[in-house]
Amino acid sequence: MDYSDNQTLENFRNAIEAKLSTIAKSYKPNSLYEPVRYAVEGGGKRLRPVIVLTACEAMGGNPEDALDAAVAVELLHTFTLVHDDIMDADTWRRGRESVHKKWNSSSAILSGDALLVLAYQSLMRTKTDDIATLLKLFNDGALGVCEGQALDIELENKEDVSNSEYLNMIEKKTGMMISMAVSIGALIGGAGSTDLKKFKSFGLALGKAFQLQDDYLEITSSKSVMGKSLGSDLTKGKKTFLLINALKMANEEQHDALKRIINKTSITSVELSHVRDIFEECGVLDLTKSIIKENISASRESLDFLDAKNRKDLLEITELIQSRKN
Amino acid sequence: MDYSDNQTLENFRNAIEAKLSTIAKSYKPNSLYEPVRYAVEGGGKRLRPVIVLTACEAMGGNPEDALDAAVAVELLHTFTLVHDDIMDADTWRRGRESVHKKWNSSSAILSGDALLVLAYQSLMRTKTDDIATLLKLFNDGALGVCEGQALDIELENKEDVSNSEYLNMIEKKTGMMISMAVSIGALIGGAGSTDLKKFKSFGLALGKAFQLQDDYLEITSSKSVMGKSLGSDLTKGKKTFLLINALKMANEEQHDALKRIINKTSITSVELSHVRDIFEECGVLDLTKSIIKENISASRESLDFLDAKNRKDLLEITELIQSRKN
Repeated sequence: MDYSDNQTLENFRNAIEAKLSTIAKSYKPNSLYEPVRYAVEGGGKRLRPVIVLTACEAMGGNPEDALDAAVAVELLHTFTLVHDDIMDADTWRRGRESVHKKWNSSSAILSGDALLVLAYQSLMRTKTDDIATLLKLFNDGALGVCEGQALDIELENKEDVSNSEYLNMIEKKTGMMISMAVSIGALIGGAGSTDLKKFKSFGLALGKAFQLQDDYLEITSSKSVMGKSLGSDLTKGKKTFLLINALKMANEEQHDALKRIINKTSITSVELSHVRDIFEECGVLDLTKSIIKENISASRESLDFLDAKNRKDLLEITELIQSRKN
Repeated sequence: MDYSDNQTLENFRNAIEAKLSTIAKSYKPNSLYEPVRYAVEGGGKRLRPVIVLTACEAMGGNPEDALDAAVAVELLHTFTLVHDDIMDADTWRRGRESVHKKWNSSSAILSGDALLVLAYQSLMRTKTDDIATLLKLFNDGALGVCEGQALDIELENKEDVSNSEYLNMIEKKTGMMISMAVSIGALIGGAGSTDLKKFKSFGLALGKAFQLQDDYLEITSSKSVMGKSLGSDLTKGKKTFLLINALKMANEEQHDALKRIINKTSITSVELSHVRDIFEECGVLDLTKSIIKENISASRESLDFLDAKNRKDLLEITELIQSRKN
């Protein structure tokens, strides 16, 4: 996923990248801040901070005013990646070793903690009349992400997970952060409470679509495109929309094959390809695509209250998410 | 250490305890918030939040106005305990199992993260005209604590540690949090920037004295009084003021005996008692006591600018710290 067809979004990404490269630049000790800088440098789509700036612009605000808040959101996101990678024992992130693999768990716990504080530090640089609402949105988002990760771990250990349990989990884990990103940007751009509610709905639906697309790409993409190893979620007991529904929609033979593979401790590329075929044949890939489409449509409709010109770039982000390959 | 001889401090502690018991009370999911509530319920001296309220009172403010900020400081402190216990593999805390022992590392990482966000949430409930300074003090303190813990881990792996390296580490790890507690209380009580500097000096010196006393009690107290196992710091490579100086002040026989014991993987009560004797004989216990006294005196002098009546309770806290047994 890149922004090369949209100069505004591309400029936003560059401004965010430039600002991120200044974070904790000369801070000491290195044992704390090297892992911090490494995690921040990891690149990625910078989707959440781009959404902050785009939402600010959509309200007619100056995106520059939202840059520190955008960086805060990205630092918060980076903090969750560093800590989640420890909990999920993921050793590969954005095409590089994860922090706990390159250093150790203690470094990853501590640099994650520092990233969260740095996020608040950056947020507080925002010039706004309504610092209380800004921080409330940020706190609610941060707590929602913790709750989502806790639910994610709960579901790992649960045999029978319903779609609503799963959707509730991703609404917190992914939806709330994207919803917070869009709300913060809109707030800085001048949104009042009525508009904020609509931006929130937009973000929740978009976040759900984003996570479902992630689940989809975990099965259908390749390691080189995604920058992380694929299929490992299956053997870790991670629930995805695809797996939950495939276990319901598969015939007996497919069901047994799936159960056999997910009970293994690791997965080969042949097995991953077998899972992919089963998901395709039982119709779960199509089902997932249609739910993604529904959520993308719902998110777009939430923005109907904005002028076409103002909502253009946010709508473009929804398209990029729907068609992304990584 | 208790406040039973000072009704004001005792009342402060009770008010803090009551407010803490409401934190995340009915929040879900339990897999996240049970460990959070367990960690918060752990009791303890509540020294840092008591300092917040006492500093507010010293400036002539209403301590009730500082209660949410006091709770925020205690939540921040609790967050550091939960995460530090994972990093230090400490299984015992405030007389109970530590969070990562009772649950697991993932629960402890995640509930620690939530505690940090809950701290900011509580801080934001504070009614103040200067929310920017309040948050700046809090952020600086939180980042200082992360830096202190990183330095602490660095020193573990270092053979030859100087007193200044050690004192720099505890200034960050313990001093900055206590300094932040006193500054936040004073700010809410109405302190301007000149006064704040004096409160900060008070807190830094008091924090150093507190940590040195902790090192001292780790060797001279008992498990039942302290609510945690003692002496384990020695075999973990943890540097303390006592050990650093004993290795310099001991004669050859004592030096060899110390080296032999700290190179073991665990320590018996007979060995701990042997270490205690060496520390006593080589004069390091006396040295530590005198440095604690110096820092306590320095902290008290920082408050000379206050009326005797206004500084009374803060001075009493310095005495309680100096004479504490746990």
